[in-house]
Order: sequence, then structure tokens, then C-alpha cells
Amino acid sequence: MMPSQADFLRDLLRKLPGPDLDAAGAVMRRQAQLTKPPGSLGLLEEGVEWLARWQRRDMPRLDQVDVLVFAGNHGVTALGVSPYPASVTEQMVLNFQRRGAAVNQIAQSVGASFSVVPLQLERPTADFTEAPAMTPFEFRAALQAGYDAVVPGTDLLCLGEMGIGNTTAAAAISRALFGGSGADWAGRGTGLDAAGVSHKAEIVERAVAFHGEALHDPWEVARRLGGRETAAILGAVLAARRHSIPVLLDGFVCSAAAAPLIRLLAEGLDHVMIGHVSAEAGHRRLIAELHRPVLLALDMRLGEASGAALAVSILRAGVACHAGMATFAEAAVDNRG
Amino acid sequence: MMPSQADFLRDLLRKLPGPDLDAAGAVMRRQAQLTKPPGSLGLLEEGVEWLARWQRRDMPRLDQVDVLVFAGNHGVTALGVSPYPASVTEQMVLNFQRRGAAVNQIAQSVGASFSVVPLQLERPTADFTEAPAMTPFEFRAALQAGYDAVVPGTDLLCLGEMGIGNTTAAAAISRALFGGSGADWAGRGTGLDAAGVSHKAEIVERAVAFHGEALHDPWEVARRLGGRETAAILGAVLAARRHSIPVLLDGFVCSAAAAPLIRLLAEGLDHVMIGHVSAEAGHRRLIAELHRPVLLALDMRLGEASGAALAVSILRAGVACHAGMATFAEAAVDNRG
Repeated sequence: MMPSQADFLRDLLRKLPGPDLDAAGAVMRRQAQLTKPPGSLGLLEEGVEWLARWQRRDMPRLDQVDVLVFAGNHGVTALGVSPYPASVTEQMVLNFQRRGAAVNQIAQSVGASFSVVPLQLERPTADFTEAPAMTPFEFRAALQAGYDAVVPGTDLLCLGEMGIGNTTAAAAISRALFGGSGADWAGRGTGLDAAGVSHKAEIVERAVAFHGEALHDPWEVARRLGGRETAAILGAVLAARRHSIPVLLDGFVCSAAAAPLIRLLAEGLDHVMIGHVSAEAGHRRLIAELHRPVLLALDMRLGEASGAALAVSILRAGVACHAGMATFAEAAVDNRG
Repeated sequence: MMPSQADFLRDLLRKLPGPDLDAAGAVMRRQAQLTKPPGSLGLLEEGVEWLARWQRRDMPRLDQVDVLVFAGNHGVTALGVSPYPASVTEQMVLNFQRRGAAVNQIAQSVGASFSVVPLQLERPTADFTEAPAMTPFEFRAALQAGYDAVVPGTDLLCLGEMGIGNTTAAAAISRALFGGSGADWAGRGTGLDAAGVSHKAEIVERAVAFHGEALHDPWEVARRLGGRETAAILGAVLAARRHSIPVLLDGFVCSAAAAPLIRLLAEGLDHVMIGHVSAEAGHRRLIAELHRPVLLALDMRLGEASGAALAVSILRAGVACHAGMATFAEAAVDNRG
């Protein structure tokens, strides 16, 4: 009997490089000697240990940090799920390329390189309330585009997205993977009013009802309810695992895009942290399902990798402390009695 | 009749420069035109508006950011309130000067200059359970040292402290200003166990009982229960208000040091934000009393301005977005329908 698609992917995931526990141990031993009370740098220390674990290096580094944004268009926008027209996706891609968007400024301010990958913007996905968003071929192409966009040797990858309508796709993915109701996952997006949010929740329920049992396979959730940009994020997260590159995810859409991996394998997202918990309603709930640490909570709700890129500054400070601080012995500081 | 010390200081505070509402208005008008949904950068936008308001500039800048750490020694350490010996205060000052501490690395990583001001480390304050920590003359000298350490023309000031035993002083100040019991404000500090925390809470209660009615004057709270470094922070916060310099406070001790100002005048700390909410138990409760925004929550509990300095990266990103993003018109992006 052929293995199911989910079983096949689970086996594949298990064969990808795992964490380097020796590197993590080396970090913890050094941290205990640095001139500070044990653990007093909190998530800065946790972040350095995580980088060591997944970079597989005793002294992690952040010399090459890439911010990668994928863009796609969504058929479901025809149902009126966003206050902005779908034309904005392509216009914002041009804005990214001309360095006029928030993420361009944030990436520069944290010393990261930036690129955007538009995915067939002229061909929106199908309206997922009445058909799978992508054919198997389209889904595979988007996954591959994301996978191929990751450059081996990168020290840290920040992922994000642009796609008018994609908080509806993210709500549908979350609903399908983690249950609850459409209302639990539908939020204001770029600025819906209460009636708009209810309409969005209703569309999510309609989609989940339409696809039915097919949604028991997490990979089918990504194909049927996602967009090209969310599929590309999924591919990029896999590529990062393959190349031992830790990943910072951005907000709600980006986290939902990667979420199928944790449904395939409990440790499927261990090489990932969440850069920023979005003000978008579903994100906190989604993070509780992903069991991954969050670095920032600044009430942002922009997407486009802005929160992931901003969080680089936190990890950079952690790495600087780890590499540059004196030990108790070096500084001749008395340790605790 | 002579005005009371508190009335005199309140009048003085009212005469210092206030916020520039025109500059804040200019920031808000520009933010509405930038290529993002309104308000979607959350605290980044709030931070830029706050900087404009207190720098009194339409386009705030962060060219000169100073991190300033004050150090002092505390007589109350004789009662066994810290697992570290008091000798560590001076040793850490040397470590700061040789750039071996966490804050040195963090300040460099966010592009801030750093300096440390040791305050008569060879003369600890009196044990505040049986005498005022400082004489009026000593208190005034420490305040003045803090005031004078602030350089006019600085764009942003990050404040912090070093002083073995000073979380006990901070707990006592907080208890005296905002009520509750010693147990509400006493935390683990650099690493006390549960018995140590109870002992600390009991010392706080003893101190508050000893000083009695004198603690109704917030200025007396700072003198009788604080240390030279907390008095210097108070002086620096006043100098910053005088010179239109916004301030990022660090954790629990630093926030407690500045807290008397909000007891003098409701808007006394409006030119202040909290860089990081400390893992030290009393800090969340104290922040609720100060009514000031917090930028980071990374489970740090180190002091030495580490959390304030780290938060500079957030404000820098906000300022970069504000100055560098394209408007909807410039980028030819359709605004919401």
C-alpha cells in the first residue's frame, strides 16, 4: 500500500537535519560564566541557544540575515474580505522593490538584506469556498518557488507575505488545522469593521464545510485554503530546515502558512521562532497551538515580514552579549556566595 | 507660610518644557499617508509620535542616543538581601568601563554611546530600616550628579543602575509610594530563594514602619529609602525634562527611582517610556501605577540599563519607517476604498 501524502512528508521531515545539542550545551556553559546572574538575559539567552542549536554552531552568528517576502493574489477577494482592492498586492511589490515600504526600512535598520518574490500575481488562486485554491501542480510550483528562494549559508531567515485577502486564507487554514469556529480566527485584517469580520468568519466556515474530510491532511489544507505566498512560505521553512537555517516567522498569515508542519510532526517547527505577536485577533490563539517562543509584542498588524525583521535586533543583541561579554574570571567579579 | 517641599517641586516641574503638540500632529498627519494600513505599525508609530512630542521636532531623530548607568552601594545589604556581596557593585563598574558587561554589548548593537557614573561606592547609604538612607545633603549631591550627567542636545536618554541590594530599595520606594505590602513588591532580585524573598519583604515593611508619616512626601521617599544611584536617576529624569530629551527607563529599580515624579504631578513622567518590563516581580505592578507604555517583555532581569538600551532598536526602526517610507501618492498604491 502506498503511504499517504502526510506519512510520506512526515518521514521526509524526520530525515532533515535536527538540532545540534552539543552546540546548545556549549552556549549554556558559556552563558553560566558571563558577568550576569544566571538566566538574567531571559529570551536573549534562549535565542542564542536556539540559534546555536539550529545553525549547528557553538558560537552562533548573524552575519547574513535575509528577509524574504512572498506575494500572491487570492480569488476569495471577490467576496469582499478586504477594504483594499487586490491591485494593491502588485503595487506593494513595486513599493518593496523601490524600498518604500515599512519592511525595507526595518530590514535596513537591523542590518538584514531584503528581497520580494511575486508569485503569478496576474493569476489569483481560485475562490476557496467553491474549489481548491490551487491545483496540485500550482501548489507544488509555489512550494518549490519558496524552497528555491532560500540561500544555503544564510545565518537567519525572516519570512513574510503580501497578499490582499490573505488573512482570510490564514483564518481558514487555522480553522482547518486547529478547530474552533471561523469567528475564533477571523480578525480585522487591514481594517475591516465588525460586519466585515463576521462576513469573513462566515466565509471561513463555508470553505471548511465545502472541503470537508480532505482537510484531515495538513498538506491539503495548505493547497486548498492557502495562497501561492503561503505555500511558498511553507517551502521556505522546509528549505531552511534542510540547510540548518533558523527562521523568524512574521505575524498571523506567516504563522498559519507554516502551521501544517506542526500537524505533520510535533517538532516540525522547532527551528522557528515567532518574531512578533500580531494585533490580528487569531495570532495569539495560533501561537498557543504552535508552542513556539515569541520575541516582540508591539501591537503591529502589517505583515510583510515587518515583525520578523524587527525581532532580528533582539537576536543580534543576544549574540553580541554572548560573544562580547566578559566572564566572571576575566573581569575579576565575585560570583554569588 | 512656606510651601511644602512637595508643593515647591510640583511648581518647579510645571515650569519645565512640556510636550510639543504641533510636532506630534505633524507626525500623525504623515503617518496617515505612508503605505500601510492606519495604525498598523502599533507601538512603532506611538513611539515616533512620543519622540516628536518631547524632542519638539516634526521629524524626530536618534542621532545621539546616550545610555547612562549610575552605581551606588546600600547599607541594607548588611541584612543579607542579595546573594552577591556588595563588592560586586564596584567590580561591575570596572567591567562597564572595560566594556565587558551585557549593556556594553547591547548599547553598541543599537548604536548608542555608554557611560557609567559611580557614586561614592566607598560610602554605602545608611541601613534604611533604622535611619534615612541619605542625609539631605547626600541626597541633594546624588540628585545633582544625575542632573549634571545629562548632556543637552541628546536625542534619547536610556537610564539604568547598578547596586547590590537595590531591588530592596526599589521595593521599599514602591511600597511607600503606592501601598500594598512588602510581599507585593519584593522579588528574587539577582536570585534569592523563597525564604530570601520573604526576608526582603519583611525588611521593606520594617523600613516603612520606621519612617512613618515622613513617607507622605514623595521626595522624602526617594531620600529615606533610595540609594545614591536611584537619586541620580531621579535627577537625570528631571534634567531630561528640562532639556526636552525623551527617556527610556530600564527595569524595576530604574522605574522605582523615577516614580516619585508621578506622585508629585500626574504628567511628571510623560516624557518617559519603559524600555522593558522586568521579570522582577514588582515591575508589572509598578508600571500599572506609572501608566507609561512598555516596549519590550523578554523576561530579562538584569538592570544596568540593558532593557532600556535594547528598546532603542524598536524606536530606531520606527524613526526609520517614518522618515523613509513612501506615501500612497509617491508609490502609486491605491488607498482603501
